[in-house]
Amino acid sequence: MRVPLDSALLTDLYELTMLQAHFDAGMNDTATFEFFVRALPPQRNFLMAAGLEQVLDYLESLRFTEDDLALLAQTHYFKPEFLRSLGTLRFTGNVDAMREGTVFFPDEPILRIAAPLREAQFVESRVMNLLHYQTVVASKAARIVLAAPDARLVDFGLRRAHGSEAALLSARASYLAGFSGTATLAAGLRFDIPVHGTMAHSYVQVHPNEIQAFEDFAHSQPANTTLLIDTYDTEIAARKVVDLARRVARRGITIKAVRIDSGDLGEHARRVRRILDDGGLPHVEIFASGNLDEYRLRELVEAHAPIDGFGVGTRMNTSADAPYLDCAYKLVEYAHQPRRKRSEGKATWPARKAVYRHIDTHGVMTRDWLTLEDEGRDGTALLEPVMVGGVRRGDSPGLAASRDHARCQLQALPPRLRVLESVDSYPVEVSDALQHLALRLDVRAGAASSRKPGQR
Amino acid sequence: MRVPLDSALLTDLYELTMLQAHFDAGMNDTATFEFFVRALPPQRNFLMAAGLEQVLDYLESLRFTEDDLALLAQTHYFKPEFLRSLGTLRFTGNVDAMREGTVFFPDEPILRIAAPLREAQFVESRVMNLLHYQTVVASKAARIVLAAPDARLVDFGLRRAHGSEAALLSARASYLAGFSGTATLAAGLRFDIPVHGTMAHSYVQVHPNEIQAFEDFAHSQPANTTLLIDTYDTEIAARKVVDLARRVARRGITIKAVRIDSGDLGEHARRVRRILDDGGLPHVEIFASGNLDEYRLRELVEAHAPIDGFGVGTRMNTSADAPYLDCAYKLVEYAHQPRRKRSEGKATWPARKAVYRHIDTHGVMTRDWLTLEDEGRDGTALLEPVMVGGVRRGDSPGLAASRDHARCQLQALPPRLRVLESVDSYPVEVSDALQHLALRLDVRAGAASSRKPGQR
Repeated sequence: MRVPLDSALLTDLYELTMLQAHFDAGMNDTATFEFFVRALPPQRNFLMAAGLEQVLDYLESLRFTEDDLALLAQTHYFKPEFLRSLGTLRFTGNVDAMREGTVFFPDEPILRIAAPLREAQFVESRVMNLLHYQTVVASKAARIVLAAPDARLVDFGLRRAHGSEAALLSARASYLAGFSGTATLAAGLRFDIPVHGTMAHSYVQVHPNEIQAFEDFAHSQPANTTLLIDTYDTEIAARKVVDLARRVARRGITIKAVRIDSGDLGEHARRVRRILDDGGLPHVEIFASGNLDEYRLRELVEAHAPIDGFGVGTRMNTSADAPYLDCAYKLVEYAHQPRRKRSEGKATWPARKAVYRHIDTHGVMTRDWLTLEDEGRDGTALLEPVMVGGVRRGDSPGLAASRDHARCQLQALPPRLRVLESVDSYPVEVSDALQHLALRLDVRAGAASSRKPGQR
Repeated sequence: MRVPLDSALLTDLYELTMLQAHFDAGMNDTATFEFFVRALPPQRNFLMAAGLEQVLDYLESLRFTEDDLALLAQTHYFKPEFLRSLGTLRFTGNVDAMREGTVFFPDEPILRIAAPLREAQFVESRVMNLLHYQTVVASKAARIVLAAPDARLVDFGLRRAHGSEAALLSARASYLAGFSGTATLAAGLRFDIPVHGTMAHSYVQVHPNEIQAFEDFAHSQPANTTLLIDTYDTEIAARKVVDLARRVARRGITIKAVRIDSGDLGEHARRVRRILDDGGLPHVEIFASGNLDEYRLRELVEAHAPIDGFGVGTRMNTSADAPYLDCAYKLVEYAHQPRRKRSEGKATWPARKAVYRHIDTHGVMTRDWLTLEDEGRDGTALLEPVMVGGVRRGDSPGLAASRDHARCQLQALPPRLRVLESVDSYPVEVSDALQHLALRLDVRAGAASSRKPGQR
């Protein structure tokens, strides 16, 4: 039996063995989990929340098919009564979350799930898988956007993204963060993102010569001609483009852009710009690609390289300098009692929390508060209810609106956090009430853990 | 219309615009592409080929559905005749490849596709996406296996893998490289990999106390009890395990293992081992997890930490220190003529090639040869035909056999390449004939590129 990629079985085995134990013990009170990041990677000054939409899709559609249950039965880990209970499992809980595109910092929950224990526990693996990756990518892509704010940025990363879903979701997350589009056709169609395409070196190489390749392509894509000019000699190719543009103009074909993919991109762009301008083609754009990231883009922008757009692939899709976040999905409350994990170096803040952000009169964020849910603070509350009783609350904002929100968030960043290098961290203050609760739980648990084991 | 994850539309737009241009020009001679890695990341001394099986699945099942064609029609990039031709597109070509699990080095093709131009070109994006990621992971996992050759290694990485497919394929690639299993249920079921599971901290936390959590779990999973002991105090929890083991033994329940997930893993393991041994539980295994990679495992192994198995997640699934490879899928021949890309810093070896490996009398690999396909050399030829005319040649070797092959490959590694630090590179000699051909093509192309543009 084939296991589809979006199967409910895409989970850690332990989620189901824990559920079986909860089932056996009849435990299913309301459990509340929060997803947060423990610490920033050294190369990040802020993070950008992303992936909520896919999490909600997952929660809404979660169910075990007959095939799933048959496969589980074959593993012999599970009892038949328990498997029957899985057959009717649906997500019926509440979700509070930060809007996609919101800038956030360590210890701040970006998602809270409150649901009957088995539901809230079961969804851990896939919720993390969805929320972590898009947040990784949006946080990386936001840096690239800050480094080249005026350039057209296109996701070029399908080939080296980590599998199919990474390719699709990184196109989405980078668009959310401010990219202009993607080269990945399926992502464009699925998420309504503009799709861009040029040509490969192999296209040029199968033709008897470069000009023939350019000419064939211009005739085939008269409204959409971007020519790759670095297969042999970049500047010679640029001159061929000038010749070609004159000849095909008569037939109503306009060369839109050229792409440079190797060598010193800035230097080549300057020479090619001159050749195009001298050839009467000031409107032909220059597009660059090849091992780009925010550091390389900053260099090119600071050197005023005449490049109109960048194809940014691998290093964005894999978030190469920080390919993962130290994130967690932690129990903070069970049966209305706050809970706290105290493992060494991994202690977490207990209870349902709120995050408030103070914005100054210039629209710049100045500090956040992490509080108990019901404390209240001045400022903007960042978590809002998005699902109640397993049902989405209102329509999804849509990717375009989330992208606008992300743009506003980046505009509100304090200037010192906009640089690519690591700076002093943004202040996230933990309320006294939350600190006291954590301390109180530690004291109580310290007493509990020295108690003698109880009888079953 | 929803675009499924395994749609033929999971491609770069440019593959299809190039295909449209080839269609318009009537070009469809045999094109040969080779997939290779240009250079090793600084942290790698060798790579391990993986992902071939999924590439062959993709090629075998490639087709555009009616829905796909309807979506393409809506983009207005394509002409109706061309879209009709896509409706009948199948992969009919030949594939030569290195077996999965084979160790390889820069410039050595691990896959060659020879097919009518449009087929060979179209498959580029997804073939790279599949082959690159699993090769990244197998190459990382092989290092982890070398660092802890006697330990049970289990993939724990679903939650921070880059999406669903990455989770499944990294479980597969790490098992191929020598891991013992995975925690990802769907991967275990899909690829017939042993699945392991323990419990989460939240499981312990929802119970009134730790011993109740342990006891519930032992009763629920009597044949499969691994208890997580670091939620509060690791050593106190280990003593509770001793008490519990005595009590549940009467009912036929055996505690199999304990897991430690935080703090100084080596030191905790030593103390816990002593507690378990003193408590008459020498058979209870110690399993460790938490931010592990080959460097951390080497430290623990060298310190003789009494740890029987490791859960290795994030840093393996994301290949955190080298999350991508500088790989390429390059045209090497079209219409029986060798081709070479000459872009600055990205020139490639032309023509269909062979790779031979010389193994010394101790079974250790000593050098490889990169030659023209028909030159011949002593040694083992690493590329073999795996698909002819679009049909798999014989049965797939199966993951278990590929895993055996990978183990033999690691055994044949020269000792100096087995260390984690970067060493002098392994010798890959390029044959004179191949070097001469490359030079000849450069001279000819130099002449061609100064030619005047031809008329259409």
